[in-house]
Amino acid sequence: MRTHYCGLVDEALIGQTVTLCGWADVARNLGGLCFIDLRDHEGIVQVVAEPDADTAGNAEVIAAAAHVGYEDCLRVTGVVRKRQSVNEKIKTGRVEVVATQIELLNKAEPLPFHAHENPGEDIRLKYRYLDLRTPDMQRMMRTRIKLVQALRRWLDARGFQDIETPILTKATPEGARDFLVPARMHPGEFYALPQSPQLFKQILMMAGFDRYYQIARCFRDEALRADRQLEFTQLDMEFAWVDEKIVQDAVEGMMRDVFREVMQVELASPFPRMTYEEAMRRYGSDKPDLRIALELVDVAALVKTSEFKVFADWANHEDGRVVALRAPGGATLSRKQIDDYAAHAAKYGAKGLAWLKVEDAAKGRDGVNSPIAKFLDDATLAAILQATGAQTGDLLFFGAATYKTASDFMGALRLKLGKDLGLVAEGWAPLWVTDFPMFEWDEEEGRYVALHHPFTAPAVDDEADLRANAKTAVSRGYDMVLNGNEIGGGSIRIHRSSMQSAVFDLLGIGAEEAQGKFGFLLDALKYGAPPHGGIAFGIDRIAALMAGTESIRDVIAFPKTTTAQCLMTGAPSPVPDKQLAEVHISVREKPAA
Amino acid sequence: MRTHYCGLVDEALIGQTVTLCGWADVARNLGGLCFIDLRDHEGIVQVVAEPDADTAGNAEVIAAAAHVGYEDCLRVTGVVRKRQSVNEKIKTGRVEVVATQIELLNKAEPLPFHAHENPGEDIRLKYRYLDLRTPDMQRMMRTRIKLVQALRRWLDARGFQDIETPILTKATPEGARDFLVPARMHPGEFYALPQSPQLFKQILMMAGFDRYYQIARCFRDEALRADRQLEFTQLDMEFAWVDEKIVQDAVEGMMRDVFREVMQVELASPFPRMTYEEAMRRYGSDKPDLRIALELVDVAALVKTSEFKVFADWANHEDGRVVALRAPGGATLSRKQIDDYAAHAAKYGAKGLAWLKVEDAAKGRDGVNSPIAKFLDDATLAAILQATGAQTGDLLFFGAATYKTASDFMGALRLKLGKDLGLVAEGWAPLWVTDFPMFEWDEEEGRYVALHHPFTAPAVDDEADLRANAKTAVSRGYDMVLNGNEIGGGSIRIHRSSMQSAVFDLLGIGAEEAQGKFGFLLDALKYGAPPHGGIAFGIDRIAALMAGTESIRDVIAFPKTTTAQCLMTGAPSPVPDKQLAEVHISVREKPAA
Repeated sequence: MRTHYCGLVDEALIGQTVTLCGWADVARNLGGLCFIDLRDHEGIVQVVAEPDADTAGNAEVIAAAAHVGYEDCLRVTGVVRKRQSVNEKIKTGRVEVVATQIELLNKAEPLPFHAHENPGEDIRLKYRYLDLRTPDMQRMMRTRIKLVQALRRWLDARGFQDIETPILTKATPEGARDFLVPARMHPGEFYALPQSPQLFKQILMMAGFDRYYQIARCFRDEALRADRQLEFTQLDMEFAWVDEKIVQDAVEGMMRDVFREVMQVELASPFPRMTYEEAMRRYGSDKPDLRIALELVDVAALVKTSEFKVFADWANHEDGRVVALRAPGGATLSRKQIDDYAAHAAKYGAKGLAWLKVEDAAKGRDGVNSPIAKFLDDATLAAILQATGAQTGDLLFFGAATYKTASDFMGALRLKLGKDLGLVAEGWAPLWVTDFPMFEWDEEEGRYVALHHPFTAPAVDDEADLRANAKTAVSRGYDMVLNGNEIGGGSIRIHRSSMQSAVFDLLGIGAEEAQGKFGFLLDALKYGAPPHGGIAFGIDRIAALMAGTESIRDVIAFPKTTTAQCLMTGAPSPVPDKQLAEVHISVREKPAA
Repeated sequence: MRTHYCGLVDEALIGQTVTLCGWADVARNLGGLCFIDLRDHEGIVQVVAEPDADTAGNAEVIAAAAHVGYEDCLRVTGVVRKRQSVNEKIKTGRVEVVATQIELLNKAEPLPFHAHENPGEDIRLKYRYLDLRTPDMQRMMRTRIKLVQALRRWLDARGFQDIETPILTKATPEGARDFLVPARMHPGEFYALPQSPQLFKQILMMAGFDRYYQIARCFRDEALRADRQLEFTQLDMEFAWVDEKIVQDAVEGMMRDVFREVMQVELASPFPRMTYEEAMRRYGSDKPDLRIALELVDVAALVKTSEFKVFADWANHEDGRVVALRAPGGATLSRKQIDDYAAHAAKYGAKGLAWLKVEDAAKGRDGVNSPIAKFLDDATLAAILQATGAQTGDLLFFGAATYKTASDFMGALRLKLGKDLGLVAEGWAPLWVTDFPMFEWDEEEGRYVALHHPFTAPAVDDEADLRANAKTAVSRGYDMVLNGNEIGGGSIRIHRSSMQSAVFDLLGIGAEEAQGKFGFLLDALKYGAPPHGGIAFGIDRIAALMAGTESIRDVIAFPKTTTAQCLMTGAPSPVPDKQLAEVHISVREKPAA
């Protein structure tokens, strides 16, 4: 149907006849002389229909060209010639195609919006096929495709086995984020869509596959945040007979190779490494964005006897943290701006945000402007300025709360300040975060919860040791972080049944419950399960980072909205009761509160 | 953790120290001299623990070896040496590893079954991890993995874009085989799991992706036959700006390349082609197994005036068929065997199965043995023998019914006879079946149904023509058949909204219903949709064919049973009412009748 792609017509083809297929990007009719920008996925080329003696018998062509409208689907045959007015903006800008035939393959009705408009995301999602036709969306989507291709090629070449695991899996009691699927053949029973193939990939290691990967669809039924989707895609990997170093070295090398191939950039070698403790202390985050040079500075030791009660209380609290963050040049921030930062911090748990402007560092107390200065004695003030390295023109923010809360909101503040003040360095900042706590104490539930997941191995190999030191136990989990995003998370797994039972027990999962939920795993661990570990990478996020977009929706062909809808197809939708009866369910009269 | 794979230890390593990880396949203790067959995915190597003066200090090794049991997970370090009694059955049979260290990584409890037993498929599925460890399962699963890798490599190299489409899609009213998923955020509304990405891939062509593929998970909620799964995997492909020839040439070449790479076999070039009409006439099937040389022979013209009423009735029926099938050497079949064939044919709709043994072809009527011979006059008998080429020692089966039914059961009989009589040729017999009817008349529903699907383009490009000749209309669909299996099916699609509406109308889908179900497609077709077409291949079936197994469960890591259960995890399972309430559904008190 065509001899060339529109976007690849070049000077080497001058004088040749080509047949192109594409959409009319723009059509201009200049009194009998018609120009059509014909577009396919490779780009745009200019087509001309002209009443020239050299192209005799082209009255039909001109008539056809005169009726071309936006997004009409065309087949054009013509002769390539040098273009008089070169268009440097497009690849094909030195040539044009003089049409000898224009075939209208499909007429487009008036469009609901035009490519150069920004009609709002809802309209773009409704007419997704039109939105995806735009060069920018094509570029972003194709970046994702290249990423996945490069990953697969890398993995295939190294003996990783691409194995599909089920989408219709076991519903676990209390699987609060499970999507449920009623089973037609088993009235009252349900499948669940997998939140990840975690247990299946562990089973695959016990089944002798040695090295596994899957570009796996995962599902999480939860209120959507801007950067989440109900269904998302992971590069899921697992290795048998390994320790952390083997897994980390392998996937770090993979990421370097893939970024080199897709983005032509060289990531650090090796990636920096940081413990969870250090990441929280310096950056208030377990996924620090190292492109931002700002760091948190602990000042609890300086304010233990301060008159400022909030500081002193938290400085003396067993689990308290008092921390300062220097905003370079921040002394020029208005009261309104400072309030906005306080509001931002409040979203992450801050009850208040103290601040101190350094208007003239040389003047000591007289040079600072702060509601809390009066509570700080001279020595304390000087010590704080010294500890934070605050200079004339800077501003200090202070957070005081539990360690976790203070870290959270000061970490969030650091990110926002970094962006607002233009302190985010160009480039790519990967790192490993390691040595996570094994457990977190959940105040609400009054029990330990797993910081990674309950299959993560503890650093100690002895159940009694783990039980005795659960509060401070460190896991063999690790996260890969890139530019402040957790792009991968993994661990060495528990491979002995007795240790797995001990961890379930510590997590408050009784023997009977464990057997009901995870009996097949506990069984499998009894038949010679090898030591194993792995990692999973968020493909949507990595693709978005590579494509240079904030929104993962730009790298998903048919995303859902934050209200969990597909605006193009209209999913979800009501279903006749007859169909529900066939799968033995009914809609509840009263929606759950 | 290891220096080499067990199955790859060879003579080049003699004298070297290696560290291996694997499972104890067999362990034999011969009075202080212990042999362990250590197995990983690459194969088995013999490990020896011996009280030899040259390997001093090995009392610990012998003690460890003496306690090794089946499927214990071990790490062994030792020195490779030439083996005295060569074992030609295994790759490593010329060497053995003299252990200097044996580390028990994980003890295996007594196994529920042993690899050499056949405990029945239910037990194998429950302990899938043990079953998958066996060399035969590893070989079959890895064949599938190689197939998918080869397909991807081929497609990636040719610019096909691997694009993921949603798993949570729109529930279509009357989607009788849809899996439903209640929507948490939208009480009373549901998603459906896709039966295929058909509409999404068409939309992707309208969205400018030009060439698409996906190894796509599809779902069909129906009573399971032995060769079906609730979820299955397709290689889904679509091309923009193409006709049949472009699609067929491309994927036929792909299959040849992939079979060459994975199986080292050369498929026919080009594939034979056959219309639907010819396939039904000669083989009684739209997916003929061409490895079987037997063909159906129409004899209606010979029996129109026969005294055998069944023959005469169907021979004179507008939609009747009377057909003979020669079973070479079938004259030796017993009455019991013939009855069994009749029972087989009955499963496919036969009301009876006439037969005729040719005991001596030279003797004419006196040489045949048949309950129906007396109804056939000499000329008819002779004509039938001639038409079918029946020889002394052959048997003829006869079918008479509607064209469809007679074809179905005689086609099924042909397959069974071919296998039973050893008439299935070795090798691979691919072909294209084309020119399918556009519609089939559904007696029960009293309306046309689509033979492929409602998006398949008719051969005629004019709606009025299609409406006028719906009964005989031919579609632009095509199937790829291999050894009697439909391994791929595709078509050129409708790309104009008006034609799509006409086809919906002919299928009894009214304008309003069409808008409700497929409105987004009808919309998309209005904005310059390009001509497009594609195909989908059944990966599970192709993998099973390559692996040489009848059961697709052998090439699926975690399959479900014919009662839709995962015996390993116990899916599906009941769910607490609280969880159902959260997604606004309840279980019906009374299961649907």
